[in-house]
This record gives sequence, C-alpha cells and structure tokens, in this order.
Amino acid sequence: MQSQRQKTPLSSVSQKTIGRLSLYRRLLHDLLLENKKNVYSHQLAILAGGTAAQVRRDMMALGYTGSPSKGYDVEKLIESIGIFLDTPEGQKAALVGVGNLGRAILAFFSGRRPKLSIAAAFDSDTNKTGRLIHGCPCFPIHDLKKIISERGIELGIIAVPAGDAQSVADLMIEAGIRGILNFAPVPLHVSHKVHVEYIDMTMALEKVAYFARQGL
Amino acid sequence: MQSQRQKTPLSSVSQKTIGRLSLYRRLLHDLLLENKKNVYSHQLAILAGGTAAQVRRDMMALGYTGSPSKGYDVEKLIESIGIFLDTPEGQKAALVGVGNLGRAILAFFSGRRPKLSIAAAFDSDTNKTGRLIHGCPCFPIHDLKKIISERGIELGIIAVPAGDAQSVADLMIEAGIRGILNFAPVPLHVSHKVHVEYIDMTMALEKVAYFARQGL
Repeated sequence: MQSQRQKTPLSSVSQKTIGRLSLYRRLLHDLLLENKKNVYSHQLAILAGGTAAQVRRDMMALGYTGSPSKGYDVEKLIESIGIFLDTPEGQKAALVGVGNLGRAILAFFSGRRPKLSIAAAFDSDTNKTGRLIHGCPCFPIHDLKKIISERGIELGIIAVPAGDAQSVADLMIEAGIRGILNFAPVPLHVSHKVHVEYIDMTMALEKVAYFARQGL
Repeated sequence: MQSQRQKTPLSSVSQKTIGRLSLYRRLLHDLLLENKKNVYSHQLAILAGGTAAQVRRDMMALGYTGSPSKGYDVEKLIESIGIFLDTPEGQKAALVGVGNLGRAILAFFSGRRPKLSIAAAFDSDTNKTGRLIHGCPCFPIHDLKKIISERGIELGIIAVPAGDAQSVADLMIEAGIRGILNFAPVPLHVSHKVHVEYIDMTMALEKVAYFARQGL
C-alpha cells in the first residue's frame, strides 16, 4: 500500500471526485467508530451509493491501492484522503452574516475539523461584533480586508440576505479570497479564478414539500 | 393578470422549475423590502441568474402573466408562487437528530415560514428530549410514529450520523413520510414514491477549500 501526496494534473480530478473523497472520509470515520479496521471497495461503494470500480478509480487519484485480500486499511485511507484534501497547515474560512443562518453555520463547523475552520465572522450590526459566537470571533464588516490578510484566511462563507451577497463576494475577492461557499439564495458573478459552491436549505426543503405532496 | 391554483400535469413541472420558483419568491421578498412594487422578467432573470424567457416560462407554469408595460406585480407574484408551492393548511416536518447540525437546522427554520415548519424533533438521547429546542418540542425517537401520525407531519429531515441515516429513513417512511431532506453524508435507499433531497455542508466546504487552493 502507498500513501503519498501525488501531483495529479488538475484536469484529472473533477469536482465530483473531490466530493466523493470528502464523503468517503466521513464514511470511513464512521467505520472506525465501529472498530472496523479494513474495508473492501465494494463495501465502501455500497455506503457511498456508487460502484466498486468508481471507488477504486477515486483511490487511484489519491495514489492509494488496497490489498486484494484485506481491502483498504481504514485508518491509512483516512490519512491519505487527508493528505490529498487538506493542507498541512490547514485552511481558514471567514463567514459574513451572523444572523440565524450564520450562527447555525458557526455552530455546525465549530471544532469539526482542525484543518478547515471558520477563523473569523463579520457583521455590520455592532451588537454582534467584538465577541465570540460559537467560539468564533466576530468583527465589524469594515475590518474584513485587514483581518483576512492578517490571519491568512483563504475561504469565504456568505450568509447574508440575497441583496447583499454580491457586494460581500466582491469584498471577499478584493481581500484575496478564491473560494466561496454561498448560502444566500442568489447566483454570484465572479471571475473564473474564484470557485463558488451553493447551498440553499430553504429551496431544498420547499422541493421536498412540493414533491412529497405530488406523491413523487 | 391572474393568480390561481392551476392543475398542471406533473410531468410539466420539473424539479428545476420548483427550485427556481422557491428562489424567485425569496428574491421577490427582498425586492418588497426595498419597496419595489413591480419587476420585469429580465430584472428577475438577472437576480436569479437565468434568462427572461425562462422566467416567463416558469411564471406560465403558475398561470401568472405580467403586464408588458409594468412587468410583474411583486406582491401578487409572491402570492401566486405561495399558492403553487404551499398548501393552504401548511406542511409540517419532523427532524431526527438534535446534535450540532440538528440544532443549527432548527435555528435556521425556526419561525421562517408559517406554511412550512419543523413541528417536532426526535433524538435517542434522553437529555435532549422532553423540552423545546429553538421553539421546537423534542421527543424520544421511539415516539416518532405516534407523533407523526397525531400531528399530521408529512416531511422528514435527517441530521443523524451516516451510519444511522438509513434506519431513520426507514422509520420515517413506515410512519407515512413521503419527502425527506437528508443532511447525513450517505445516500438513502428508498422507494420511488419517496422524494429525497441531499445537503452536505461539509462536502461543499471541502470542495471550496480544494479548488480555491488550485486557483480554480
């Protein structure tokens, strides 16, 4: 077995592969909690809702191969995925918008992953700034550029109303951020150098409600 | 202009259309807050990241047409989308799993939409049951079937660890639930009569982190 940081050409690692590696890691953590030491590609495939061939292809992107007799070593595979997905020094995110949604996001990510944490939150409401919220320091929005630069923050999370999302994204990008997770229900117009992911919890629940009613 | 409940053949209303109607409604609420009374299809299209033709097609699915000179009446359009997406009596959801994520979800949806609310939460931890969490009563998981039936709950939200998600989904479906929003990082195996939407916040942030680093 091998476990190494591999220089894979960018074009060969798709968004879907990165998404599945993130999923595998969490499934493997669950297996570890159940004291499972090894897992076969077909077992991991069932958990992840894919095929064994796809699991093996994804692991090859990591430069990791299992043993035909014992499958993958769970702990070593978690480590390999970590080497691939994380940086040794970790990456930090800044959250903008400390309303209900922002607080929920802070509560969810708080302490979850040392290599990927929310290092600062920002709001324009001075009642929310100057203190810790779920362990995260909250600053006035006009300090965003300074704090992002001082603390080496690379990622942004947007949790403001739709009407403010684009201007917050522009601020973040001006401060040097190149990856944004956008919870505001609005598409962002950004340069192709900035990667944006969208999450819309209200839309998801409204779709569930509509299609549940139709018996679909 | 007209505003009516329309019997549209199911096949003609796609998941994407429902998602866009949910998005339009929230964008229209923001316009209302800015005291905008009317909006043209091309203006709404820019906000939603689509085309004016698509906006007009989506509105036709509602049976709603704007005026060529003034565009859509914002308030009436919100009302029309509500008639289409909501039921008059509202729909209720049950949340299972009151850990960090579950609490975050309760905080986010609390009081947000009268026609679509989380009416009950469930957990196996007796420290969490028997009280209100963000205004939502929390019950022991073994009461799920009884409470769902008594309170007319139609939707389920899963916020348990991956290893428990399928058994929770099975319990929900046995209790009569036909729509599930799954926050657990695992695919669910359900009958085609059950509609499932997935949200994976960790995966989304890990993708942002990876691609931000690649400069993509």
